[in-house]
Amino acid sequence: MAGTLGTQVVTQVGFVVKDAAKTKKKWAEFFGVKEPPLVDAGDYEITQTKYKGKAAPKAGCTMAFFDVGPNMQLELIQPNGEKSTWQEFLDKHGEGIHHIAFQVKGMDKVIKQAEGFGIKCAQRGKYGDASGEYAYLDGTKDLKCIVELLESFKK
Amino acid sequence: MAGTLGTQVVTQVGFVVKDAAKTKKKWAEFFGVKEPPLVDAGDYEITQTKYKGKAAPKAGCTMAFFDVGPNMQLELIQPNGEKSTWQEFLDKHGEGIHHIAFQVKGMDKVIKQAEGFGIKCAQRGKYGDASGEYAYLDGTKDLKCIVELLESFKK
Repeated sequence: MAGTLGTQVVTQVGFVVKDAAKTKKKWAEFFGVKEPPLVDAGDYEITQTKYKGKAAPKAGCTMAFFDVGPNMQLELIQPNGEKSTWQEFLDKHGEGIHHIAFQVKGMDKVIKQAEGFGIKCAQRGKYGDASGEYAYLDGTKDLKCIVELLESFKK
Repeated sequence: MAGTLGTQVVTQVGFVVKDAAKTKKKWAEFFGVKEPPLVDAGDYEITQTKYKGKAAPKAGCTMAFFDVGPNMQLELIQPNGEKSTWQEFLDKHGEGIHHIAFQVKGMDKVIKQAEGFGIKCAQRGKYGDASGEYAYLDGTKDLKCIVELLESFKK
């Protein structure tokens, strides 16, 4: 299909929260399911996080994931206090829904297309286990939210 | 399954925006698809909207829907300036993601279960075409978002 991302299938809704352990407990009780584990975003040696185009070795977060559909995740993100898209959202808006995410093919090309559309990349990096990468596009002006791109590396 | 809702499948992400016509144009361009129509929330005679437990005949909005998955919608909601969960969110947080939604069976029972969990119903009403009903649960304290329940009436 055409379009900026090559897809319009949303696969994740991401929340920024102050205390991921506490909020995942509540969601697990609400859903009546087992609590998922907390996951650390990983070491900078692997993630190579860039925030607003600059190396951000301290940027980090703790996450937890719930399956909320055959192809949908609910992600909780607790920023670590260092500058990042997550911390910026928490400081500006408080806790709440930070992004929706799409699985893309060809991260660099898709980011370029989004920039051509007028939407800049706010942060990008690799998964903590080096299995893929993500990018946050700042769509707040036109699309009214942050759009996350996700891509798994081929094995 | 157990749990408060009887489901954990998210079927909609809902945005509150100032200008639904403008924002749907941007999303349509971004996705490379045709613009969906604007839909009015409908007349109070049918919707019977209640906000914080009281009749809210003036509460209304204009909506637009994008399909963003086999079982997922992206909803844009432009509140009409009268008191509602939509207007309250816009006044407090500005534009952004207002809720995630779940399809439930037995609205009254599910609302009761949510209240037992400590989550109150903020607003409820019928669809403008009388084909079903919705309720917004105020999960902001514990779940960090508003949770919408949707139920189609049996034919």
